[in-house]
Amino acid sequence: MAARLRVQAFSVSLDGFGTGEGLTDDEPFGHAGQRLHQWMFAAMEGQPSATPLDVELVRRFWDGVGAEIMGRRKFHVGTGPIPADWRGFWGEEPPFHTPVFVLTHHPRADLEMEGGTTFHFVDATPSAALAMATEAAGGLDVRLGGGVETVRTFLDADLVDELHVVVVPLVLGRGQRLWDGQGGLEERFDIEVRPGGSGVTHLLLTRRRQG
Amino acid sequence: MAARLRVQAFSVSLDGFGTGEGLTDDEPFGHAGQRLHQWMFAAMEGQPSATPLDVELVRRFWDGVGAEIMGRRKFHVGTGPIPADWRGFWGEEPPFHTPVFVLTHHPRADLEMEGGTTFHFVDATPSAALAMATEAAGGLDVRLGGGVETVRTFLDADLVDELHVVVVPLVLGRGQRLWDGQGGLEERFDIEVRPGGSGVTHLLLTRRRQG
Repeated sequence: MAARLRVQAFSVSLDGFGTGEGLTDDEPFGHAGQRLHQWMFAAMEGQPSATPLDVELVRRFWDGVGAEIMGRRKFHVGTGPIPADWRGFWGEEPPFHTPVFVLTHHPRADLEMEGGTTFHFVDATPSAALAMATEAAGGLDVRLGGGVETVRTFLDADLVDELHVVVVPLVLGRGQRLWDGQGGLEERFDIEVRPGGSGVTHLLLTRRRQG
Repeated sequence: MAARLRVQAFSVSLDGFGTGEGLTDDEPFGHAGQRLHQWMFAAMEGQPSATPLDVELVRRFWDGVGAEIMGRRKFHVGTGPIPADWRGFWGEEPPFHTPVFVLTHHPRADLEMEGGTTFHFVDATPSAALAMATEAAGGLDVRLGGGVETVRTFLDADLVDELHVVVVPLVLGRGQRLWDGQGGLEERFDIEVRPGGSGVTHLLLTRRRQG
């Protein structure tokens, strides 16, 4: 099977917000805080609230992935050039362990971190970025890491093969909506719905094969 | 336990729309058609896709309910006075079998139907309408029947005791959003999440008791 572009463990509120409002370096999800991702921490820490499916889907975040693509605002919440001393939200050893392609209109030099993560800053269309990441992934899949706007952009370009969304039982009220402009998505994707722990619901969307 | 105000089997899309766009007498849910309610028909008809929980929750739609409150647009999709010959969407024997209070700024005479349903057209605040319906329910619960805007209005007034929402795996893209303005609802309600048939997810919200 050809390498696939996968969105993994992308959490949204009941009202469809993938981040809250008021994003800062300290609160990259804004007023949502860490509430959208508690289920994931529970799964990673083996807490009793986590189900086997939660654990499996968190594992799948890394499994068979050879590169990631992320939007500039996942790497840094601002706009314009990224500050020269900013090295991402994840410390010196980010959890990606692969090449990561950061989409930005203000490219800068590669940033090689510990543990195998190298950030490449590229000003590219979705399909061009995917071509670069696919080559870097060396036959493995490419993860599309977000944020919200980046996922929507790749959905609009019909480049996403798998989309794993986690619906968390809270109502954020404001922020960035994943589903905006995605009416009729169920016509392009099969949608499997499975319960997880802590009241979350896993949506597993798989793009239908073209006839 | 005192009589409760309950929303039952209120279906929304993944992106939170309780109706589509373009509501007409023939398509009261607009471009959503009947897609939001297939799970319910399946449960009522005993189709294999329906789970015992689906069936139980459809039964609960009627169970212990002595009156309904609905918005004017659930009774008739237009605005302004309701046409004199309009008798609702449900034929001569509507499925309510109780008094039904239709909120409208253009009251008209009561409409007595077969099977125990009588429509009362009232120009009243949410709390006044609830008082009328509670008295008519004779100790049973009152169902809040929708539509979207009416449910939101009663949530804003903090009059809803139970809210059963059914999330259907499709993306409508446009219409009327249930969750608009409801940020932080999880602070007022306990939320139980349970899987149903046909890929739907049942959200059972119960208002917390005031300390």
